[in-house]
Amino acid sequence: MINTLYLPELREMLAENDSAGLRDFCEALNPVRAAEFMSGLDSAETWQVIQQTDFDSRVDIFLYLDDDKKTEILETCPVEEVADLVAGLPPDDRVDLLQNIDQTRLKKVLSIIPIEERRDFQRLSQYPEETAGAVMTTEIARLTEDLTTHEALNEIARQIEEYETIYYLYVVDAEDRLRGIVSARQLLAGMRQPDTRLHDIMESDLVLAHVDEDQEDVANKVAKMDLLAIPVVDSQHKLLGIITHDDVIDVVREEATEDAHRIGAVDPLDESYLRTSLLTLSWKRGFWLSFLFFFALITTIALDNYESVMDKWKWLMAFIPLVISSGGNSGSQSATLIITALSRKHVEVSDLSKVVVRELSVGLLLGGSLAALGFIASLFIMPAGLPASAFLIIPLTLLAVVVCGTLIGSVLPIAFESIGWDPAIMSTPLVAGIVDIIGIVIYVNLAILLG
Amino acid sequence: MINTLYLPELREMLAENDSAGLRDFCEALNPVRAAEFMSGLDSAETWQVIQQTDFDSRVDIFLYLDDDKKTEILETCPVEEVADLVAGLPPDDRVDLLQNIDQTRLKKVLSIIPIEERRDFQRLSQYPEETAGAVMTTEIARLTEDLTTHEALNEIARQIEEYETIYYLYVVDAEDRLRGIVSARQLLAGMRQPDTRLHDIMESDLVLAHVDEDQEDVANKVAKMDLLAIPVVDSQHKLLGIITHDDVIDVVREEATEDAHRIGAVDPLDESYLRTSLLTLSWKRGFWLSFLFFFALITTIALDNYESVMDKWKWLMAFIPLVISSGGNSGSQSATLIITALSRKHVEVSDLSKVVVRELSVGLLLGGSLAALGFIASLFIMPAGLPASAFLIIPLTLLAVVVCGTLIGSVLPIAFESIGWDPAIMSTPLVAGIVDIIGIVIYVNLAILLG
Repeated sequence: MINTLYLPELREMLAENDSAGLRDFCEALNPVRAAEFMSGLDSAETWQVIQQTDFDSRVDIFLYLDDDKKTEILETCPVEEVADLVAGLPPDDRVDLLQNIDQTRLKKVLSIIPIEERRDFQRLSQYPEETAGAVMTTEIARLTEDLTTHEALNEIARQIEEYETIYYLYVVDAEDRLRGIVSARQLLAGMRQPDTRLHDIMESDLVLAHVDEDQEDVANKVAKMDLLAIPVVDSQHKLLGIITHDDVIDVVREEATEDAHRIGAVDPLDESYLRTSLLTLSWKRGFWLSFLFFFALITTIALDNYESVMDKWKWLMAFIPLVISSGGNSGSQSATLIITALSRKHVEVSDLSKVVVRELSVGLLLGGSLAALGFIASLFIMPAGLPASAFLIIPLTLLAVVVCGTLIGSVLPIAFESIGWDPAIMSTPLVAGIVDIIGIVIYVNLAILLG
Repeated sequence: MINTLYLPELREMLAENDSAGLRDFCEALNPVRAAEFMSGLDSAETWQVIQQTDFDSRVDIFLYLDDDKKTEILETCPVEEVADLVAGLPPDDRVDLLQNIDQTRLKKVLSIIPIEERRDFQRLSQYPEETAGAVMTTEIARLTEDLTTHEALNEIARQIEEYETIYYLYVVDAEDRLRGIVSARQLLAGMRQPDTRLHDIMESDLVLAHVDEDQEDVANKVAKMDLLAIPVVDSQHKLLGIITHDDVIDVVREEATEDAHRIGAVDPLDESYLRTSLLTLSWKRGFWLSFLFFFALITTIALDNYESVMDKWKWLMAFIPLVISSGGNSGSQSATLIITALSRKHVEVSDLSKVVVRELSVGLLLGGSLAALGFIASLFIMPAGLPASAFLIIPLTLLAVVVCGTLIGSVLPIAFESIGWDPAIMSTPLVAGIVDIIGIVIYVNLAILLG
């Protein structure tokens, strides 16, 4: 959505080269809103506007621009000005942004920025995607444990512009190994005893993320413990960076979307829906769609082999969609419930037997209800002159496929989790596909038995 | 998962009434871990352990216990001790917890706690669930704008125990209307100019939540702006409370799970999977399952009416599961993608035409591929002696149902969003059900035309 409220004024000020007006615009508004009001400008115009304000608010506003516009600015605006901005970005955002730009431009920008930022980029960009290392930021307040709270406060005040967060302060030893954490809250509370040493107030039973740890596990820890930030360490316990609450929210949302896509049999998109190219979108869906096609083909082959049975009782055919959709839907429900519960850690592999008992009970109850509905429906649709036992075919099939659906939909995701696979691969269409095949076999065999 | 590492020691200390040992256990560990190590104790034992430590760490550890155990403690432990604890809980947690306990106990507890906490509970518990008011906490640092940074720092240090967060400080006027926000970071940075007034450094272009606003919208704002907390105001702009980053993470996870459940055709559970009673679980699934059953019944009735066509070309029947699952799966994929994109605000109602063009293109591409696969499969399964045009029935049907699936799966959620309904109600099984009916009609009519 493009906010056009200030667009005419901005364009006018740009045409008149009204630096003072543009600076006021950038500084009076919250950076998020300033970025929003510029969404109608192209990237050259946007750059021209934010060049008028001071460095800090330029960085702030830039960070809230659309991803596409950020990339465009980095790729097309004057390289010296861009390098200047890049050097001032928070390290984690810098890596995310630079990884998306054109290689020649990237080399040029890296050759101009200060060596410290260049090394930082090179180090951070080595960590594999979706690990703690790839999400962390490196600008953290490091202190030593012999400082007093008074000295620590002064130290923080002096260097405050360099840190992304000052709400936790990290106490390290001479080898940069993490010894403890002091919160800004403790420091402020300690203002009445200015000579207390950090050693005496720091928390040393720490919750940590390892640099190679999966971002989802890290996010779960932060969410469980209500942390503002979690320190990231290597195997020598050296402090490499921190992951802050805002990045954790992004991870939680990203992982939830990935899960939802997998459950819906779409390979998770790396970008948002409208930004994904049609070919990528088709491939990420086509792969699963073809796979599911072959599953459905098995059902077709099975039905083809049962042609003689179907020929004898033609009315059976009309119920095929009802039978397979009932099994598929109950299976989808179970798979959805169990996959989301596994990812929230509400269900673990050790709960398998509890889950089976629950799903069996729910399956019998739901299957029983659908069986009753199916019995009534079959009274109207089945032809006259059939043996009494034939009236049991539809209800018994429905009961059986619903129970199969609940059991398969719940057990397979747990089985995948137990062997270390992502349970969400057991997508609801895949569960439905498996239950379809079993459903047809049950249906035809019950018909042979009772018809 | 129950952590049993310290269980024998804890039980021994309890048996020996070793207060010092139990206090050490509570105080040396991080409260999260202390709570985890007590997961094997029953609620009376847990209460006995945390009674040994000071009030603050008792509250901290209590908050990290399992929900069931918290409720049990509040309902069964000595009412005076419980009331003492309840009075010290953060207001938002207090409301959540007290709303789950037995009514007689609740009245007793409320009658003992201080009047201020009682009123606070009564006020907070009036806000409807899932609104900003129901999630906010009321313990916030309020300051007036004529304070200097030095006075403000002292004020905060003095009252620090009363606030849930001190990282944002709220500047209000005499009528408690919110005028601006100062961050602890700004205060610390301002230590070098101790006489600056808050008025001169406070941010007054504020991002706010209205007390009646939906929690999902509030969470989206906080996530977009990377906030630590968002102030909640009423229609007179009076400051009522704040919502902090940890509650936002909970909301994001809760809403993502609710969406996933709806997409999977389960009415969202209020509690975690294993805690939901079998009857509730059956009802929340059975409702949708029966609804979908009637959809499938329409397909059955349609097929029953087409019996004469099916009788003429018996081989058509074998392909029914393939045809309906292909349409259903492509529809599920589109619905999943569009529903998640709508909830992340990656797609808006105004993008409808863009989405239709994309889905039509993807549908043609995917439908074309499945048509090719279906053509090959039908060469093997179709009987000999059919007219050449009959070999087009399966490919053309597949192409048509996949395109229908992508269009219905994408347009219906956007249509729901545009009339203010939750697009996730358009669950993937419901999309599949609708596409099934259309698919059968297309299939049979193409067969009549080309067979």
